[in-house]
Amino acid sequence: MIIRILGLDPGLRNTGWSILEKDGPKIRFIAAGVLHSNEKHTLPERLVELHQGVLKIIADYQPDEAAIEEIFVNMNPNSTLKLGQARAAVMLAPAIKGLSVGEYTPNQIKKMIVGTGHADKAQVDMMVRSLLKTVPEKIPPDASDAIGIALCHLFMHKRDII
Amino acid sequence: MIIRILGLDPGLRNTGWSILEKDGPKIRFIAAGVLHSNEKHTLPERLVELHQGVLKIIADYQPDEAAIEEIFVNMNPNSTLKLGQARAAVMLAPAIKGLSVGEYTPNQIKKMIVGTGHADKAQVDMMVRSLLKTVPEKIPPDASDAIGIALCHLFMHKRDII
Repeated sequence: MIIRILGLDPGLRNTGWSILEKDGPKIRFIAAGVLHSNEKHTLPERLVELHQGVLKIIADYQPDEAAIEEIFVNMNPNSTLKLGQARAAVMLAPAIKGLSVGEYTPNQIKKMIVGTGHADKAQVDMMVRSLLKTVPEKIPPDASDAIGIALCHLFMHKRDII
Repeated sequence: MIIRILGLDPGLRNTGWSILEKDGPKIRFIAAGVLHSNEKHTLPERLVELHQGVLKIIADYQPDEAAIEEIFVNMNPNSTLKLGQARAAVMLAPAIKGLSVGEYTPNQIKKMIVGTGHADKAQVDMMVRSLLKTVPEKIPPDASDAIGIALCHLFMHKRDII
């Protein structure tokens, strides 16, 4: 049975996304990218841009499940609020389409992929590439993070991968 | 020209809503209520419940514009984050339908309705009732707040009301 996962790394300016496919014991990289909202638009308009961007990815790639990063709240409260609103707009897209949405903290993602919750982004990116040989060399950091999130979802569900 | 305003007081558990109608110099109360999300459901499911609840109100009452309260961030960061996500789910509904969405701080709303940013909720509720004679006597606080938000939107746009 083939399962497609949509990975989402939410942000108001840049939302990373990825599509991975699990085919029996194999995981394949399908696509990844970054959605942007226009900073000159109002917040409601920017949320619509992100939301409809994710809806389009779902229509294009037909994923079966989704995974999204949880927000680390110990930061500037205004940033937390912006990020929270972007996260909801992004997360609503798969939820409306009836996909289950797994939520993972940054530490869970790092621990699942690198083996320690204190890994840095470069280590996560390196592990992502060693697990998925077909990830393009030049990929934006937010897209790479979204691949890590989708991988974490696959690992957490203890399927017979790799 | 008749204009219908949708007022929204977002919250993850309870989201207050109101519909007011401005008909030339008159403002009429049309409807108000509270949407609930099920606490036993996952966050993505709860956001969908709120979002689809607002979409239904829009379909039922066909408002022309929307108004929503801004979040006061000086509170518990986890509460801010929850509220921010609920707010985005709620706000996305009118934004997706092409309605402009006015955003007002709690102080702007109090100042517009009572005349001071330091008014308490009871004063706002009293003023709402004196401005709109047809508001039902027993109305939940979140619905009353949503009426205040819609009224603020009408006042801020300096139309020839009252």
